[in-house]
Amino acid sequence: MIPVRMMRKMVWERSMNKLSRGLSSSQIRKPRPPSLVSLDLIDEWSSTFTHSHSPPIQKSINSDSARIIDGRSAAEEIKSSIAVEVSRMKESIGKVPGLAVIMVGQRRDSLAYVRNKIMASHEVGFRFSIAELPESCTEDDVCDALSNYNKDASIHGILVQLPLPQHFDEGKILNVLSLEKDVDGFHPLNIGNLAIQGREPLFIPCTAKGCIELLLSSDVEIVGKRAVVIGRSNIVGLPTFLLLQRHHATVSIVHAYSENPEIITREADILVAAAGVPNLVRGSWLKPGAVVLDVGINPIEDPESEHGYRLIGDVCFEEAVRIASAVTPVPGGVGPMTVAMLLLNTLEAAKRALCFT
Amino acid sequence: MIPVRMMRKMVWERSMNKLSRGLSSSQIRKPRPPSLVSLDLIDEWSSTFTHSHSPPIQKSINSDSARIIDGRSAAEEIKSSIAVEVSRMKESIGKVPGLAVIMVGQRRDSLAYVRNKIMASHEVGFRFSIAELPESCTEDDVCDALSNYNKDASIHGILVQLPLPQHFDEGKILNVLSLEKDVDGFHPLNIGNLAIQGREPLFIPCTAKGCIELLLSSDVEIVGKRAVVIGRSNIVGLPTFLLLQRHHATVSIVHAYSENPEIITREADILVAAAGVPNLVRGSWLKPGAVVLDVGINPIEDPESEHGYRLIGDVCFEEAVRIASAVTPVPGGVGPMTVAMLLLNTLEAAKRALCFT
Repeated sequence: MIPVRMMRKMVWERSMNKLSRGLSSSQIRKPRPPSLVSLDLIDEWSSTFTHSHSPPIQKSINSDSARIIDGRSAAEEIKSSIAVEVSRMKESIGKVPGLAVIMVGQRRDSLAYVRNKIMASHEVGFRFSIAELPESCTEDDVCDALSNYNKDASIHGILVQLPLPQHFDEGKILNVLSLEKDVDGFHPLNIGNLAIQGREPLFIPCTAKGCIELLLSSDVEIVGKRAVVIGRSNIVGLPTFLLLQRHHATVSIVHAYSENPEIITREADILVAAAGVPNLVRGSWLKPGAVVLDVGINPIEDPESEHGYRLIGDVCFEEAVRIASAVTPVPGGVGPMTVAMLLLNTLEAAKRALCFT
Repeated sequence: MIPVRMMRKMVWERSMNKLSRGLSSSQIRKPRPPSLVSLDLIDEWSSTFTHSHSPPIQKSINSDSARIIDGRSAAEEIKSSIAVEVSRMKESIGKVPGLAVIMVGQRRDSLAYVRNKIMASHEVGFRFSIAELPESCTEDDVCDALSNYNKDASIHGILVQLPLPQHFDEGKILNVLSLEKDVDGFHPLNIGNLAIQGREPLFIPCTAKGCIELLLSSDVEIVGKRAVVIGRSNIVGLPTFLLLQRHHATVSIVHAYSENPEIITREADILVAAAGVPNLVRGSWLKPGAVVLDVGINPIEDPESEHGYRLIGDVCFEEAVRIASAVTPVPGGVGPMTVAMLLLNTLEAAKRALCFT
């Protein structure tokens, strides 16, 4: 079942209540003993069900509409070149890259993502392995599965499908993952090396890398431009910020506690929406001519669709397409690129491990 | 000798020439093979010697002027409380925190910084050790000195005074430094843990930590506010961005390749200037009522001063004081706080190592 709140048309508004619920002023004001984790907040974007704010459904797009950035065909192109490399590797040394996924529980969205990864792996000729653990398993069970894949020479990339059930300590589990196989690039050492000028991470997180690839392949100028990332998750917002910054954009991060987010987003030449809130970004949030990358993949109920639901992004596509110069659709935009980048990272990991150039 | 360019009154302007000199478009457009280091640019803020842009020297400050944030007295207070802790430690377990500095060459600014650290260490009762190496030494010499301090149980914090001479690989050297003694907090694992929500770095880089302490002790609200950091150095700009973000500001980084930086800085409720360019930030760069932290410490010639030069910040103080609501002076603002935070980090390191609570 899709939760009711997901079915709502959401508009964003900052609620001071939320802030006071989340964090007392004494928490903010006492940095000693220094605990950053004690400051952490859940970025829950408050939402209201308001029909008055619903965008008019615009079935046909007028002739002035934005260019649609086709992530699916860009991803296909990358996968084709990966497949060629895999063939060359197989012929040359008799080996192929191996990707392993650890999956805990049966979240429907996670199942769909994993299915995509399996299909894509087969498409390019990778070996694929999955460890499916029940939601009732322990952290040790997950760590054991990780350790086995760490030792398995036929596996070059490992990822733990996130989010893990709430009672798991993600950080502790990810610490077990061999750095050389961390194809998601979420290890703090990788993130540190992504952040620091002069350093090179072993892997760049897949969605961030996919976003930059889409910009570059669409001939979007990045250097010196204003880029705004909406959302500051460890897996998308943060690495995308860091990567845009390494590419010399002038980057801001907007999050659920930002005051007047739409004023900031309206300054963006490049906008990356990764808040996980359907239709958060309205036309009025956009600078005319902006390039908009929509990372959101939000299921909403739709009785007419085959599975009873369909996917929409964080950006109100019908409105964006009339104001932006280019925009990614959902589905078919950033999503396929994320999977392609995962394959690319795994290919790199295999090449490094096997000293294949 | 102070370089001639340092004596100039500088105004900042973005030069497209600089961009094309620094980086060709083909470098930007080819992310594969992915090398972020190949994208790195030297953030050289172009400057022009223009008398017409000189600020009027305003000796007396009018009554509407900003509150001056007194970093010196805030730092003294922190040092006093550290001294108390050191006494308690000495009485209780007969040990004191030990700080070691590795210094290569004889840069005048580095000598001054190290002198401050020695004095401050003695003030609070720390043991202090310094390894002074000639500019002609090798990377191995520096690594040997580091390894010795790593093994020395009486030393709990080590720092390599930066910048190192150009022919040194800073990253390689810092990798040798024991994480538990990295009181500067520059190791990529520390930076990664500073960046990632849910994680805690062992040490927060001193200047970033000093800036936040000044904001907190000055009762400046951070959550949700627009913060702009000018400069994206690994040692100041980047960690300050990350720390402001962990404190839930809405943060942007402006750098030498940013277009129209003054438009962005004018949106800032909190502005941190860390570009290393004297008087870069003029009154017109500020939002009325902003809180301005000036990290710049730039020597300019002054025949009337004792040593023939004096220090000025990145912010044109005489102009800022009329527009901002609060501003740090140079000297006497962020500088003393950086040293105090180094002592605090070293105290923490010693407490951890000695299991002293």
